[in-house]
Amino acid sequence: MIRRRVSVLGSTGSVGSSTLDLMDQAEAGGAAAFEVEALTGGSNIARLAEQARRWKPRVAVTADAARLDELRDALAGTDVAAAAGEAAVVEAASRPVDWVMASIVGAAGLKSAWAAADTGATLALANKESLVCCGATLIERVNRAGGRLIPVDSEHSAIFQVFPAEAPERVAKLVLTASGGPFRQTPRAQMVGITPEQAVAHPNWSMGAKISVDSATMANKGLEMIEAAYLFAMPADRIDVVVHPESIIHSLVEYVDGSTLAQMGPPDMRTPIACALAWPDRIAWPAPKLDLPELGRLTFEAPDLARFPALDLARQALKAGGAAPAVFNAANEMAAFAFLDRKLAFLNIAAVVAETLERAMKAGMVFGSGDACSAALSVDAEARRIAGSIIAGLANAA
Amino acid sequence: MIRRRVSVLGSTGSVGSSTLDLMDQAEAGGAAAFEVEALTGGSNIARLAEQARRWKPRVAVTADAARLDELRDALAGTDVAAAAGEAAVVEAASRPVDWVMASIVGAAGLKSAWAAADTGATLALANKESLVCCGATLIERVNRAGGRLIPVDSEHSAIFQVFPAEAPERVAKLVLTASGGPFRQTPRAQMVGITPEQAVAHPNWSMGAKISVDSATMANKGLEMIEAAYLFAMPADRIDVVVHPESIIHSLVEYVDGSTLAQMGPPDMRTPIACALAWPDRIAWPAPKLDLPELGRLTFEAPDLARFPALDLARQALKAGGAAPAVFNAANEMAAFAFLDRKLAFLNIAAVVAETLERAMKAGMVFGSGDACSAALSVDAEARRIAGSIIAGLANAA
Repeated sequence: MIRRRVSVLGSTGSVGSSTLDLMDQAEAGGAAAFEVEALTGGSNIARLAEQARRWKPRVAVTADAARLDELRDALAGTDVAAAAGEAAVVEAASRPVDWVMASIVGAAGLKSAWAAADTGATLALANKESLVCCGATLIERVNRAGGRLIPVDSEHSAIFQVFPAEAPERVAKLVLTASGGPFRQTPRAQMVGITPEQAVAHPNWSMGAKISVDSATMANKGLEMIEAAYLFAMPADRIDVVVHPESIIHSLVEYVDGSTLAQMGPPDMRTPIACALAWPDRIAWPAPKLDLPELGRLTFEAPDLARFPALDLARQALKAGGAAPAVFNAANEMAAFAFLDRKLAFLNIAAVVAETLERAMKAGMVFGSGDACSAALSVDAEARRIAGSIIAGLANAA
Repeated sequence: MIRRRVSVLGSTGSVGSSTLDLMDQAEAGGAAAFEVEALTGGSNIARLAEQARRWKPRVAVTADAARLDELRDALAGTDVAAAAGEAAVVEAASRPVDWVMASIVGAAGLKSAWAAADTGATLALANKESLVCCGATLIERVNRAGGRLIPVDSEHSAIFQVFPAEAPERVAKLVLTASGGPFRQTPRAQMVGITPEQAVAHPNWSMGAKISVDSATMANKGLEMIEAAYLFAMPADRIDVVVHPESIIHSLVEYVDGSTLAQMGPPDMRTPIACALAWPDRIAWPAPKLDLPELGRLTFEAPDLARFPALDLARQALKAGGAAPAVFNAANEMAAFAFLDRKLAFLNIAAVVAETLERAMKAGMVFGSGDACSAALSVDAEARRIAGSIIAGLANAA
């Protein structure tokens, strides 16, 4: 029986909802018992209140300060305290628990992930930015507090499960698998007119719009390469990417003796979440199971860097080090949202990232690996400013 | 730097030669240094002598008692002691070392594997029979002597590498992959006339004739299922077999949380041997590396039990327990050699095994799991006698 006192930051999002669903199924099967300390959500007050009524946390928090009264009303008659605003999210993240799911998307999730890291809890990390922008700082915080960082992204969870943390010198390289996104087979000429509707229709995974765009440009895989470099202390040239459209092999670790270990399974976020929730134990729940004869075949191809330049830009940013990965992330986020807002052509997303990286490097935007989160956030803000002006320039030219 | 004092039992065979080749390459690359205590071979005196001149063991032994003088002559001018005969092989296996490769094929390898187990060395086990005939006894001997058993078969090595030995209750099932052999797609009507020449042409692995026949009938996979059951204390109904013609995924472990871990790589026996040689460390050598884009695709299908009944017979033997797996092994070995001698039709190999199992069970041939090796050997002899008479009966009828 797995017993955990948990908080879920970003509970109304895709990963957060999957986390609660998994907890529900594990409890129903008698494999686990959970107490919930805090749930934090965004603007979906109805869903947050529904989750709070089911899980009875001490506190439910909406990040949207203007919606405190709405949340209070929705929680009327319960013992759940309501709170709102960024500081309240960070306060919720700071509460002592066994396990925290940090699944607030984007740079907004940075501070709460740091706060959770400082508690010494096991930190299940779905927020990419806290690793990409200043992975060294986050890992240092987790280690100092005596906690443990467990990645929740399916790729990093796969690597985590077969990586020899006690002896990383046994590893020759990491291989991240990529679905290739919805435009894997789209000729470059046809990629010019890609719409947001086409881009968010991901073939294998159900996820948010911004992440879907990242998958379509493969910037997502670039971010994951950066994350993997921090999580597993691996240089850029020992992290490969292989396109695997079926998303069954979630990533691989090649050892120096020629053995390659991999984690596999049907694409379902709850499986890596289950791994993070119970590690090093395993939690039984009615998981979708791998059925290789039913699948029939798994296919693989090398990524096309000409059509998906974001992958190479991420590798360059990782090699440049310092602030470059944070700049990559900020520029990509700005460009992806501009594309979703129909203010930027699909193929210009990578162009904006490339140009932002170049300007930022010329401007000498750097921070050392030991720097505090404020430095990371100021780099993030400055990179967004640069990317914004490039996007505006492209819009004016069009 | 890996340092090991080793003995290789069956050094002139396929696995033994691969072991010495791997050791050679690891030493050449500076990753390891080996001292060899004993090499034992069969009737290939020239190869045994060549290996002895390279590795300078204290003793080189041929199992063939009649060839002692030939071996002595071949080792003239060296410090290597020559010995011959079954007792000398067992004496060689009993010498204290860090690591023993037990790769003598067939029931002949049983006694030397037991002797090696008793020394407390790490026992790299390629001899299937010592597990199939009395796996419980072997494992008990290894544990009592304070040693460690590491399987060398590619499938069991794969499982070993991703199996949670400290908490086997985390495992839902094992999945053994099978190449399907040379007749995977052969219609049953055409299987009647299969010749030994056709049967030994294995698509992926280079191996001995008897093992090639086992691969062609899938009796090999049946034996591996039995081995896996002993090695990982897993019941028959939690061991699946999946046909995977490319032999890249060497086997898989499904956990209770829905994660499946697997070991992969190009088919090369030296990779699982390298794992066994260095475990829990990893040894660097110029191993063939997994290149998924180059492979393009991996395919899977359910085994056809109608065309390959040996698989189901092995499962029945495993479920029956006691002496039944040893009977399965003995009958299969007799039938496979009869087929290679053109005294038995291909499709009758499984028929002989089925009939032998049935007669042995009716005759009440059983032994308990704690019994000594003499009991196992007497079951083996009795099953061979039964199988031999069935084969003779079929030959007379033809």
